[in-house]
Amino acid sequence: MNSQVDEQYFVDYEDLEIHELMLKDRPRQEAYHNAILKNKQLFKDKVILDVGAGTGILSAFCAKAGAKRVYAVEASNLAKLALNVIEENGLSEVVKVIHSRVEDFSLPDDEKVDIIVSEWMGFYLLHEGMLDSVIFARNKFLKDGGLMFPTSATLYVAPCSVPSRYQYWDNVDGIKMNTFGEMLRNVKSHKPEITQIDADCLLHEGTVVSWFNLETVTLEELDNINLQEVVAIQKSGNHQGFCLWFDCGFPSSSGKFEDMTIFSTSPKAPETHWKQCIIVLPPNACEAMEENTPIAFKLSMQRNPNDVRKYNLEMEMLDSDDVEHPLPCNCFMTKCILTKAHLQTMDTDDE
Amino acid sequence: MNSQVDEQYFVDYEDLEIHELMLKDRPRQEAYHNAILKNKQLFKDKVILDVGAGTGILSAFCAKAGAKRVYAVEASNLAKLALNVIEENGLSEVVKVIHSRVEDFSLPDDEKVDIIVSEWMGFYLLHEGMLDSVIFARNKFLKDGGLMFPTSATLYVAPCSVPSRYQYWDNVDGIKMNTFGEMLRNVKSHKPEITQIDADCLLHEGTVVSWFNLETVTLEELDNINLQEVVAIQKSGNHQGFCLWFDCGFPSSSGKFEDMTIFSTSPKAPETHWKQCIIVLPPNACEAMEENTPIAFKLSMQRNPNDVRKYNLEMEMLDSDDVEHPLPCNCFMTKCILTKAHLQTMDTDDE
Repeated sequence: MNSQVDEQYFVDYEDLEIHELMLKDRPRQEAYHNAILKNKQLFKDKVILDVGAGTGILSAFCAKAGAKRVYAVEASNLAKLALNVIEENGLSEVVKVIHSRVEDFSLPDDEKVDIIVSEWMGFYLLHEGMLDSVIFARNKFLKDGGLMFPTSATLYVAPCSVPSRYQYWDNVDGIKMNTFGEMLRNVKSHKPEITQIDADCLLHEGTVVSWFNLETVTLEELDNINLQEVVAIQKSGNHQGFCLWFDCGFPSSSGKFEDMTIFSTSPKAPETHWKQCIIVLPPNACEAMEENTPIAFKLSMQRNPNDVRKYNLEMEMLDSDDVEHPLPCNCFMTKCILTKAHLQTMDTDDE
Repeated sequence: MNSQVDEQYFVDYEDLEIHELMLKDRPRQEAYHNAILKNKQLFKDKVILDVGAGTGILSAFCAKAGAKRVYAVEASNLAKLALNVIEENGLSEVVKVIHSRVEDFSLPDDEKVDIIVSEWMGFYLLHEGMLDSVIFARNKFLKDGGLMFPTSATLYVAPCSVPSRYQYWDNVDGIKMNTFGEMLRNVKSHKPEITQIDADCLLHEGTVVSWFNLETVTLEELDNINLQEVVAIQKSGNHQGFCLWFDCGFPSSSGKFEDMTIFSTSPKAPETHWKQCIIVLPPNACEAMEENTPIAFKLSMQRNPNDVRKYNLEMEMLDSDDVEHPLPCNCFMTKCILTKAHLQTMDTDDE
């Protein structure tokens, strides 16, 4: 066995497994492949910075798309592996692999780049906090009018049922296992769970927690994310939790919105290694909900003071009588039905 | 939230996750459910011992099948959960949950049991060594002529291709990632991998490493398992590893072989949480193989002297010229073709 690679440097077993998972994540791969290789005009003869290049595959895509130069910056020992991947593909003339944190990296003559490419997304979008490095890189290296890949990211939340924590245990091959389900909830309830749920568990299409324009987002915007919202259930079912997922949008050479590559980790999209992030409610907060029932809640995501790469997620259920509903609101409360009817009348009057 | 359960006792998070996985493993659940509930005649008014009862679900199956008495013996704190499950199902009159190692357990008046039920199988059948406790329990508690559920277990091995370690990395969305594949192999090659492979990766239907009759198997038979074998490739492909899986058979009330419930973890059967155990070959031992090529190997499985619940697996490739081939052998070596032809002639002569 050729163990040259093995002797040269050590890559953590876990790192390698994570990258294997990512490289086998078809929706992820296809999103970046399409975003880059179906928009070659944007890359032709351009200078690219790949932040957290990992195994170097996104840099290789950029080189194949016609980039003049790609800086693949990777802080971990994977940089050496990325170098080998670039060599294996005969792209060493174009792609320069730099083993460095992007924060410690600089370009000759204060050169700027045309495009920043990065796959920085973590669980519930922000876990692992790699977006911080992307923002740093953008502020320091991106030309005015330069492009970000992805250029936008949206975090969604929706009330949902969580049958794997509840109904599943009502009847396991004829045996009632609610005691087991209860213990599972007790033991697991202290933190959100990364798991894939069926699309039909969603009780609502999802509401935006936060929309990030990658060209302008600041670090400060990432410290505290709060959403107080009232949503009207769109499909009756057992409200047992909240589901968080994200989408990313990539620039298109046509500049048209409909040509953008959109990558989604929604329960309705093909499964990715991000799955979804589920906040399971305790039994006393669960309720069977009819269509149009209002659910009022407050979601707060705060950087963990002890580890800026992690967030504390807090979900508070509010009384839908006490909070302001959106205008219009589809819920069944009299004030909302009346307001909606009134707004519709005004719309008709305008015509 | 009712945290009564939580306060009463502590169940390890990992234990709970493993049991969740098992209870959601449909082929596993269906095998035991069918084996027990489609053979009620065997259980009617009988005394059953469930070794390593876990959450108690198999004991509950036995009670539903009409058992007079079920002893559910569980060493971990799950015993208390099992007790709750039994109560939840109103089966406390029949099922007695005992929080004990089966080795420390005894029955009043040296009572014997009619049937021992256990789900003791680990990865590659023997990992975790729970069969030891089942053998102990059988020797101590099973009546003469009593039944074992399962009653047999067979461990198979077959040469296979492992595209996830080899071919996959030839072309990842147009990028050669063989460097990554090589590192993955280097880092992971020191131990077999538990993973699901496609049935079409098998280059042979599988040969028996060991067949265990649960009614008679002894502890000593589990210490050293060795197989030296020559198999003739049945489907041409890249020989990159060996795949280990197991089947279990359960007694049927008709006593007919064709009525037995067979549970299989073969790549051809629906995926289970056991998946398969793959021994990946280093690149210099890999070879493209045509149909009927002989592969000679020696597999040894020895109990780890430092941890009897684990095994050291060793696979040695042999030169097929040097070892004795089976009679008849389907390989393309001249001696085997001639022998096979000769044996066929003898068969014809007999008729």
